[in-house]
Amino acid sequence: MGKNVAEKLIDSHLEGGTMQPGEEIELKMDQTLTQDATGTMVMLEFEAMGIPRVQTEVSAQYVDHNLIQSDYKNPDDHLFLRSACKKFGVHYSRPGNGVSHPVHQERFGKPGKTLIGSDSHTPAAGAIGMLAIGAGGLDVAMAMAGKPYTINMPEVWGVELTGELPDWVSAKDVILEMLRRHDVDGGVNRIIEYYGPGLDNLSCMDRHVIANMGTELGATSTVFPSDDEVKRFLRSQNREDDWSELKADPDATYDVHEEIDLSTLQPMIAKPSSPGNVVPVREVEGKEIYQSYVGSSANPGFRDFASAAEIVDGKQVHDRVSFDVNPTSRQILENLMNSGHLQMLTRAGGRIHQAGCNGCIGMGQAPATGQIALRTVPRNFPGRSGTKEDAVYLVSPETAAASALTGKITDPRDLEDIYGMSYPNAKEPEDIIVNTDQLVAPPSEEEAKHLELEKGPNVVSLPEFEPLPDAMEVPVLLKMGDDISTDEIMPAGSRILPFRSNIPKISEFVFEQVDEEFFERSQAVKDTGHAIVAGTNYGQGSSREHAAIAPRWLGTRVKIVKSFARIHRQNLANFGILPLLFQDDAAYESIDQGDTLKLTGLRDAIQNGNEVEVENVTKGETYVAEHDLSSREIDMVLEGSQIGVVKKEFAAA
Amino acid sequence: MGKNVAEKLIDSHLEGGTMQPGEEIELKMDQTLTQDATGTMVMLEFEAMGIPRVQTEVSAQYVDHNLIQSDYKNPDDHLFLRSACKKFGVHYSRPGNGVSHPVHQERFGKPGKTLIGSDSHTPAAGAIGMLAIGAGGLDVAMAMAGKPYTINMPEVWGVELTGELPDWVSAKDVILEMLRRHDVDGGVNRIIEYYGPGLDNLSCMDRHVIANMGTELGATSTVFPSDDEVKRFLRSQNREDDWSELKADPDATYDVHEEIDLSTLQPMIAKPSSPGNVVPVREVEGKEIYQSYVGSSANPGFRDFASAAEIVDGKQVHDRVSFDVNPTSRQILENLMNSGHLQMLTRAGGRIHQAGCNGCIGMGQAPATGQIALRTVPRNFPGRSGTKEDAVYLVSPETAAASALTGKITDPRDLEDIYGMSYPNAKEPEDIIVNTDQLVAPPSEEEAKHLELEKGPNVVSLPEFEPLPDAMEVPVLLKMGDDISTDEIMPAGSRILPFRSNIPKISEFVFEQVDEEFFERSQAVKDTGHAIVAGTNYGQGSSREHAAIAPRWLGTRVKIVKSFARIHRQNLANFGILPLLFQDDAAYESIDQGDTLKLTGLRDAIQNGNEVEVENVTKGETYVAEHDLSSREIDMVLEGSQIGVVKKEFAAA
Repeated sequence: MGKNVAEKLIDSHLEGGTMQPGEEIELKMDQTLTQDATGTMVMLEFEAMGIPRVQTEVSAQYVDHNLIQSDYKNPDDHLFLRSACKKFGVHYSRPGNGVSHPVHQERFGKPGKTLIGSDSHTPAAGAIGMLAIGAGGLDVAMAMAGKPYTINMPEVWGVELTGELPDWVSAKDVILEMLRRHDVDGGVNRIIEYYGPGLDNLSCMDRHVIANMGTELGATSTVFPSDDEVKRFLRSQNREDDWSELKADPDATYDVHEEIDLSTLQPMIAKPSSPGNVVPVREVEGKEIYQSYVGSSANPGFRDFASAAEIVDGKQVHDRVSFDVNPTSRQILENLMNSGHLQMLTRAGGRIHQAGCNGCIGMGQAPATGQIALRTVPRNFPGRSGTKEDAVYLVSPETAAASALTGKITDPRDLEDIYGMSYPNAKEPEDIIVNTDQLVAPPSEEEAKHLELEKGPNVVSLPEFEPLPDAMEVPVLLKMGDDISTDEIMPAGSRILPFRSNIPKISEFVFEQVDEEFFERSQAVKDTGHAIVAGTNYGQGSSREHAAIAPRWLGTRVKIVKSFARIHRQNLANFGILPLLFQDDAAYESIDQGDTLKLTGLRDAIQNGNEVEVENVTKGETYVAEHDLSSREIDMVLEGSQIGVVKKEFAAA
Repeated sequence: MGKNVAEKLIDSHLEGGTMQPGEEIELKMDQTLTQDATGTMVMLEFEAMGIPRVQTEVSAQYVDHNLIQSDYKNPDDHLFLRSACKKFGVHYSRPGNGVSHPVHQERFGKPGKTLIGSDSHTPAAGAIGMLAIGAGGLDVAMAMAGKPYTINMPEVWGVELTGELPDWVSAKDVILEMLRRHDVDGGVNRIIEYYGPGLDNLSCMDRHVIANMGTELGATSTVFPSDDEVKRFLRSQNREDDWSELKADPDATYDVHEEIDLSTLQPMIAKPSSPGNVVPVREVEGKEIYQSYVGSSANPGFRDFASAAEIVDGKQVHDRVSFDVNPTSRQILENLMNSGHLQMLTRAGGRIHQAGCNGCIGMGQAPATGQIALRTVPRNFPGRSGTKEDAVYLVSPETAAASALTGKITDPRDLEDIYGMSYPNAKEPEDIIVNTDQLVAPPSEEEAKHLELEKGPNVVSLPEFEPLPDAMEVPVLLKMGDDISTDEIMPAGSRILPFRSNIPKISEFVFEQVDEEFFERSQAVKDTGHAIVAGTNYGQGSSREHAAIAPRWLGTRVKIVKSFARIHRQNLANFGILPLLFQDDAAYESIDQGDTLKLTGLRDAIQNGNEVEVENVTKGETYVAEHDLSSREIDMVLEGSQIGVVKKEFAAA
């Protein structure tokens, strides 16, 4: 039986498991991508493994998130990342060089390859026939160390595109239509694969828009075939040699089927505050706006800016509209200047910002109170703009530009009547300026040997974590109820997030919202460790790994709960905290905060079974707790962390 | 006897006093300038006067400071300022349109006119034969209401420029040489007037650089003559009709004399952390740098960017240097794109930021820990960059660009050897693009009548302040010692400054650092008021008027101290707090915090003498206190505020 593109990509990278939906598979990762907000921790994790050089074909680090330098912390991070790139053999994309996803596609994207990135929009590279997956920081660090990535085999969802987009309708409207149909969880545990004759008129950057926002559907990834358009794209980037064809076999099938006739689409808009809240622009037209925002990885292409530019050319944006122009990259900036489009945007009233993620991730450009913002970005989660109770609508560049002119939400098709304008139908120029200068290649391994990591006061090496002792006698330092979230374990927010690369410092905030004295209590027993007890659904919410690393630093060696949230349980195992489950609720009831628990013969018990005896010394009782660790996870817990396992392997090799 | 330019400007605007150095004079103000950080309070003050329309020839409001919109507050301010401009008849320069000083000079600057601005670098407009003075917010609001500005007649300091600047040396090096010679207080109570043959090769924007940084010498203002170069400048801005000649009479004299032979100058640099800390670049060359920053009102001209661009053209900046390019205005941005210079800067590695003040006032672009930043900005006060213990050096664009290439502090003359480069000697193009579209003219007074001010939740109208009662019996709510600063009265910092347009809210922080319970205590007597007692030099430090307005809002009606700092005393009178002085120190010693003071026959006592009886009801004692209020100030205190005086006058007219 023939294979589709997704199956071919998986098959060619399969290092373990079988390709049955739901089964665990291990995939070799050819490339990694990190951005600065997550990359500092990835580099610290990689450093902790003791491996001198990345084991991938290509690893690239982008500085695109934290570009506002209000104090020393962000620029210190940039200098640290630069030094880590040189030392570990990673390409370094300097601040101001642009948003990771489009730049990566232009510089390193290669049909048939796999990519793992510590950014949820990493799947964008699926636009040119890659299998690109967003993951947590440690997963990416492991891929840099040459380890395969483990997931459950997803279903493949074939979406056949037919017909051709009408005037004033563009790629953004295609993915908004998908979100209208399927909402934000329609793609969970699926890879979306687009195919069919409708692709003929979608450029690689149009496909990037669609693949990027597949993340908003909850999809594992999105893939497109590698066809002549991909070849044209790579040629335009002076990389035609990196092209190879990758198409579904004629008799390929899909687990799920869908069709979109592009000719039937109209301008769409996602209302506040979910990318799935999609209606035609017509349904909300006429509302007064404060902001029109173009740019981001969800409309990164030359065409996207050129289209907006040609719409506003020779006119002025409405005098209450902040028309924020966010060039995706230095290369796009150069090409838009060369073609005269940036001049059009500037003259019409555009505020030209530095190339980067900027307002898309809440770094500036927040809207005013109670005001509507129209943005070409991928997400409009509540408050993401920086303003609480914001009203962010997601649109195409055409809708953003039309609305900037009128000062109201406007269906761009109306520009024909208002200004007697015909659809600009902007295209990428045949010869583009390629700018590779600010993406710095690392020196040779030989040269890198003598380099040091450059750590500002807020960048602190990851602590080393000891192997699990065979016996421990530890106090229950905190007992909690059900549904404790990772926000309660390790709070975020602007006060705490700046310490994400400084485990000793960020640890001072652990459980702060639950128990202000937790940190102080932990210091009294920091050498001997402590236990945590809680109810059901422990560790729900955000996937942040700091919710495991920071308690571990404070001495948490075992957590005994009624049930774990999946990702947090994985993070605990990754960082050597033993995740145990009560066999019956009576034990949970019986334990009080402050009781001393004694666990003996622990290493043996874990390796050779799934039951652990827990003696409550204070109460004179004994309970049985269980673990459900895989053999891979048992290794991590025994060694003290997944990093420890890899470090040991590497040292032995 | 002939007059110099400064004397002619003063003479033609004199509304009171005599032109003897040190004597108080009243000057008619033709124009006002406000920026957004100070402008919101100015607009609230103007609103409180109840005058429908500004009384000036030109008033203009620029949004250039708070361009980073991390939440709703800055964009709310922008919308408020926009609405205030429309209502009060003020030109509104939209966010992204550029830095106030150069834009004002281009759009509204007019030889022979006076300008008062709520920004310390307002004197920059002296470049084209204006008398331009920086002042506090209320002074500007008063000028908007048609009131003259009162200062002591300064000395006029004539600086004769001879010779011609050598290659690689530019206007910035001239003002740095002045700072080297005279440090940051050399210009206090002086107007600096440049003249002589050396002017022939200094463009209006070169002169702007020099006039702008006259502020760093502590000067009241800086003036240049209006000559053919000013005519050329205004012609290039399509405003030749606004030109008139203004030169010193042939027999004019100066109070102080100085000469600079431009041909003897070399590239200069101000070391951390004072603009007066100037040495030749040669003395500090070779130090590794992190940042090279071009832009700001202290190097705003096309030439400044073009010169940097031609230096880096075809090369790459050093890979550890953040090369931050801050276009001064949308017009400069357009011209730099049109001429190809922005392309050169971008390709060489420049991070192109939005047009505005940006890093110059600590809005982003902070340097990394322990790293050197080279900047073309006017100031390098400690921590102003956003990074504590920063190391900011002030330089010309030539030195900034040369150092960006080498990664070290570099005398630009060395580029001849390193790259075989000759001095670009960049000039403004003959025909520039003029962009007036984003500087929005106000509607007619008739149309404005129906407009409302647009106030977000953080913009609150100025409270009305009651006239001084004839008798009061009030508690001493706080007693302090000597040298209390305005930072202790009204703290600043990022937690408090965002509330600068919200007096009720910011008042909660009054005296927070001195006495945490002050705010709470004030609430108990807020209807009847309270007194404050302190020692010598009360109110030293920053000139912030919030240190008077906020206590007034909390009910401070009288302050009795041993001595006042000058500006704070003026602010107290402006906002109707009675400033009294102890006749002898025994009274200060005798009064305790919590004592009740009784003052009777107060209005009469102030109007007809300078002694006030203070009965200490608690102690059963009576003291005599004095005031030294002028008749103008007596009116303010009796009426409750200077705003109240003007409001009453206007209502009567």
